[in-house]
Amino acid sequence: MKSFNYQQIDEAYKKIHDKVIKTPLITNDFINNLLNAKVYFKCENLQNTGSFKFRGATYKILRLNDIEKKNGVVAYSSGNHAQAVALASKKNKIKSKIVMPKNAPKIKIQNTKKYNAEIILYDPQKQLRENIAEEIVANEKSAIIRPYDDYDIIAGQGTAGKEIAEELDSLSILPDIYLCCCGGGGLIAGTSTYLKHKFPNIQSYSVEPEGFDDTKISLEAGSIKRNKINNFSICDALLAPQPGNITFPINKENLSGGLVVKDEEVKKIIPFIAEHLKMIIEPGGAVAATAAMLKKTNIENKTVVVMISGGNIDSEMFINI
Amino acid sequence: MKSFNYQQIDEAYKKIHDKVIKTPLITNDFINNLLNAKVYFKCENLQNTGSFKFRGATYKILRLNDIEKKNGVVAYSSGNHAQAVALASKKNKIKSKIVMPKNAPKIKIQNTKKYNAEIILYDPQKQLRENIAEEIVANEKSAIIRPYDDYDIIAGQGTAGKEIAEELDSLSILPDIYLCCCGGGGLIAGTSTYLKHKFPNIQSYSVEPEGFDDTKISLEAGSIKRNKINNFSICDALLAPQPGNITFPINKENLSGGLVVKDEEVKKIIPFIAEHLKMIIEPGGAVAATAAMLKKTNIENKTVVVMISGGNIDSEMFINI
Repeated sequence: MKSFNYQQIDEAYKKIHDKVIKTPLITNDFINNLLNAKVYFKCENLQNTGSFKFRGATYKILRLNDIEKKNGVVAYSSGNHAQAVALASKKNKIKSKIVMPKNAPKIKIQNTKKYNAEIILYDPQKQLRENIAEEIVANEKSAIIRPYDDYDIIAGQGTAGKEIAEELDSLSILPDIYLCCCGGGGLIAGTSTYLKHKFPNIQSYSVEPEGFDDTKISLEAGSIKRNKINNFSICDALLAPQPGNITFPINKENLSGGLVVKDEEVKKIIPFIAEHLKMIIEPGGAVAATAAMLKKTNIENKTVVVMISGGNIDSEMFINI
Repeated sequence: MKSFNYQQIDEAYKKIHDKVIKTPLITNDFINNLLNAKVYFKCENLQNTGSFKFRGATYKILRLNDIEKKNGVVAYSSGNHAQAVALASKKNKIKSKIVMPKNAPKIKIQNTKKYNAEIILYDPQKQLRENIAEEIVANEKSAIIRPYDDYDIIAGQGTAGKEIAEELDSLSILPDIYLCCCGGGGLIAGTSTYLKHKFPNIQSYSVEPEGFDDTKISLEAGSIKRNKINNFSICDALLAPQPGNITFPINKENLSGGLVVKDEEVKKIIPFIAEHLKMIIEPGGAVAATAAMLKKTNIENKTVVVMISGGNIDSEMFINI
């Protein structure tokens, strides 16, 4: 008996389906013709708070007991998880403290404040965010909402995969390939579990930015490996140092391999998506689309599901790109 | 017996439902809280060719007879109808000639070329596009695909309203207000017909840019009135000089009134939508959202459907705004 399976995602969806946006799954003739493939984009940039993170945060917070709810929650995040926890807390009238790196995108810091969270900024060169969060938990008996290494969070994020699976199923479409971004691995762990349940032959691939391909190298090694330190990427949502202890075993079971894209490639795909899909996506949300558009794996004549995980990009960066 | 009703839209949808994108109808907690209303945005910017125009063009072209198909089609348009006719023709292996003003947005001219149409540029200060198109029709016996004053075109555009109505109905939501942009009036004529059929108490309003509020003043007068000449608006998709002879009687029957927005207001709403809905919309596509966000009519505590009609904005203009 596995410790995680699609039934936990079904369970999560029962609780949150009326609290999250059922985001669209869109396809585009021009892109399909260009790639000679049928591509379906799951638009989690259109989710509440602009990313899939709202799913997991909502589910986790609904699962807290009354004492935990009274003491409040704490989370650490470069931004998307922060906003998600802040809004999900606000909706449930729970106070939240969010530990964010001081160099996080301004839009993410602003939006987290907008949802009434207390922000604690730290210097990622000098401090470990986990330590700051643990200290708050020790002092205030608050509940920590982890960004990915938690079965409830993975089940919550997995509900995006349930929506994809049911929509494709209703259209009698059998997907061949699933491409999904990967930071700590919570989104791909949840969604790939549901897709594999519904479509046993689907090939799922993690997509990571160059220098942060810890999941790819861990999949190849068969065990958790860390990234080299001091790498840089514009994909701020995907900079986890290594796969999660809970997410990795799930991903090892589900994934066919890992793909890698360069920042320069992502910078080309963001305006391409803006022009052709009329959508704004953030760098971390664009890596799977980049892998598809640049054919990092063979997608010719195949039906491909591409996760667009978020849209929280600073307007200056969007304009510069 | 009316000459146009919802059944023509049902008929059109049977023919085109598998050829157009069923675009999402999205709502956003942050915007709803801000407005104290429940707003549903119909995202036709995500339609093929980036606007609703693909619906009407597709239906009209499917209705041509074999001789008409052989001789090809001609259309005049500032851009969205041009792209739509070009792609719908290409998909049906029909040649197309499009008469476009030489000052049309570059993205619209480029995209029309991309779909293999022959472009005939004209000077809108000196020439009448209708005359150029009629001359081509006379010489080549080609079929003219009018932008709005045609029952088939109105029925095609109306399929967006059918999708809205059926989605709201499936969620047991009863809309109070419908806000839709209005150039020649084809989109609002079709969609308001379907919405009124499904929700008899809905109040529908046209939204036009300042200086081009011909539908508003015609509704008030009870008969077709022209705009003053030499006005300017960034809403290039909505610059029709007067309501259509076919669209106006339908709109007179369906609409509760006309609303007007200023270019400066539209320029504020485009980046707001980009930030909060993660979508790119063009000025003409943003007027209904602008009317909602700035409460040009009372929407407090109401359920409001807002049409986002298109997303074809030049990247320079988008960045400047």
